[in-house]
Amino acid sequence: MTEISKLSATVCWAETQQGPAVRMIDQTRLPGELVLKDCRTVEEVCEAIKVLRVRGHTADAANTEELRQALTTARDELAATRPTAVNLFWALDRMMEVADQATDLDVVQFRKKLLDAQAIVADDLERCRRIGENGAQLIADGANILTHCNAGALATAGYGTALGVIRAAHEQGKDIHVWVDETRPLLQGARLTAWELHQEGIACTVISDSVGAALMGQGRVDCIVVGADRIAANGDTANKIGTYMLSVLADYHDVPFYVAAPFSTVDFDLPSGEEIPIEQRSPREVSLLAGRLEVPICPEGVDIYNPAFDVTPHQLITAIITERGIAEPPFSGSLRRL
Amino acid sequence: MTEISKLSATVCWAETQQGPAVRMIDQTRLPGELVLKDCRTVEEVCEAIKVLRVRGHTADAANTEELRQALTTARDELAATRPTAVNLFWALDRMMEVADQATDLDVVQFRKKLLDAQAIVADDLERCRRIGENGAQLIADGANILTHCNAGALATAGYGTALGVIRAAHEQGKDIHVWVDETRPLLQGARLTAWELHQEGIACTVISDSVGAALMGQGRVDCIVVGADRIAANGDTANKIGTYMLSVLADYHDVPFYVAAPFSTVDFDLPSGEEIPIEQRSPREVSLLAGRLEVPICPEGVDIYNPAFDVTPHQLITAIITERGIAEPPFSGSLRRL
Repeated sequence: MTEISKLSATVCWAETQQGPAVRMIDQTRLPGELVLKDCRTVEEVCEAIKVLRVRGHTADAANTEELRQALTTARDELAATRPTAVNLFWALDRMMEVADQATDLDVVQFRKKLLDAQAIVADDLERCRRIGENGAQLIADGANILTHCNAGALATAGYGTALGVIRAAHEQGKDIHVWVDETRPLLQGARLTAWELHQEGIACTVISDSVGAALMGQGRVDCIVVGADRIAANGDTANKIGTYMLSVLADYHDVPFYVAAPFSTVDFDLPSGEEIPIEQRSPREVSLLAGRLEVPICPEGVDIYNPAFDVTPHQLITAIITERGIAEPPFSGSLRRL
Repeated sequence: MTEISKLSATVCWAETQQGPAVRMIDQTRLPGELVLKDCRTVEEVCEAIKVLRVRGHTADAANTEELRQALTTARDELAATRPTAVNLFWALDRMMEVADQATDLDVVQFRKKLLDAQAIVADDLERCRRIGENGAQLIADGANILTHCNAGALATAGYGTALGVIRAAHEQGKDIHVWVDETRPLLQGARLTAWELHQEGIACTVISDSVGAALMGQGRVDCIVVGADRIAANGDTANKIGTYMLSVLADYHDVPFYVAAPFSTVDFDLPSGEEIPIEQRSPREVSLLAGRLEVPICPEGVDIYNPAFDVTPHQLITAIITERGIAEPPFSGSLRRL
């Protein structure tokens, strides 16, 4: 990967003339422009996560000079940006643990300690590589793989989960081709996944979200690999809206359906997917292209329903690929064993 | 319906200062603007059909002054615009029959005769009303109906097929709500169906194409009604890409799946859907919003696969609603009996 790797990660700390900042690729500008955005306050980071400039779990607070209290507030504000994604909470809790252990440090040392927690990013990269290696075993040479949304380098620390599996298969010399569904409303597939794969030289074709079924009917999809925002103890998986649709279609067409995610995505406190809250997002994401163009798609005043995620029941999942290994059904046992 | 009914139909003949013309609503401008376009040559009409300013089957040739030969050429050119839609051929063949029976007329009388064939439009309206009445029997009071693309007044002569069923149920006083999927790539659902329903005061909610599955999983869809571009003798149905997807999802969730179409859509010459040619359309429909915005969705150079239709196998169709009655499986017998 050329351009992302120059940044070493989608999100990193940067020392700027105005002080330390969280630097991220503004994903709303891709694929048209590669723009870097520096956030210096919790509010700026929250805004960036909410509009999905950056997604997932690695962004965190800068300028936490009022120390622990400010960090707690920041933690709560950040957590509220994306109620479904558990990995974000995990990273925030890990930062809070660091803060709690650092009770006798002065401000400078405290901030240094938090900056060290940037190691989360390096860990994430290593985890994604292991997910990729584990998952690549399931990808046959010559496979046509369908993926949804962007579970790639842009969503993680530079290698991806679902795209990590695809990258690893490609690196192993397997001749693969990826069907990239565009993933309305925010088009993360067409904008981000296609961009990543194109940069890597991995053969891919963009399709509208409704084309995958027809391709499966024609026998042109060998497997589906998606990421996950939260996995319940029984394997039920919350992921980008449309994932459930693909799992039903895969079941009907006997196409293996794989979920690739770091183990921290598994929430053993939730017995099933029914308890996973589903984030509802702005109707403007549907009524305006990618939420930011001024050309309306829908007539004014029309109702719009825009859930960000859906839950795929464990029965429709062939395997869950993690950095600790591959869990197979029944997941309630296999996930715990990992 | 307010604005369309003022025009009496989506497409009509108009006497203008520059001579007779085919007048149509420019559907690429909806829902932002209601713009009428007059076409005076076969080329203009062909262009309008190709870019889907007007869709379906009612547009036809103007200025056919070189008489039958020109009309035959026009017929072939028009037929080539949309290889999948059989109803267009049917209307063209009906026009050719009129021409063939008018061998001893002079130019003025001949043109008059062809203009009389505009009766096709009136027939179409009556047919759609009967389709609506027949189909409305299948719609329960309080039903949540999902529809795909635009099989409404804008695709026909002012009442619609799938939307005719919905209109009729609404006119009967049934309290219905319609899930309108946006229907990428050209967004006919979000742009046209939502516009029609909103004009009629029928409750509706626009969703991304991948949301329907999640709604079915939650028991929030009572039936699906779609139109058809061509129906084979065994009931296999070609319709807008994404229709097959919905039929599989309906089957999985035990949701009735209805096709509503004029009887002329049935092509008894085709034993099954395998023989139906599927039109491939421009990648720009996917890579630019609705094919006409200058903001790219996909990275440049990425492959795009953009079939316009798919084929829904007869096993996944609950009933086919026509103006002659409702055909139930097995369709090979029931369609012939109608």
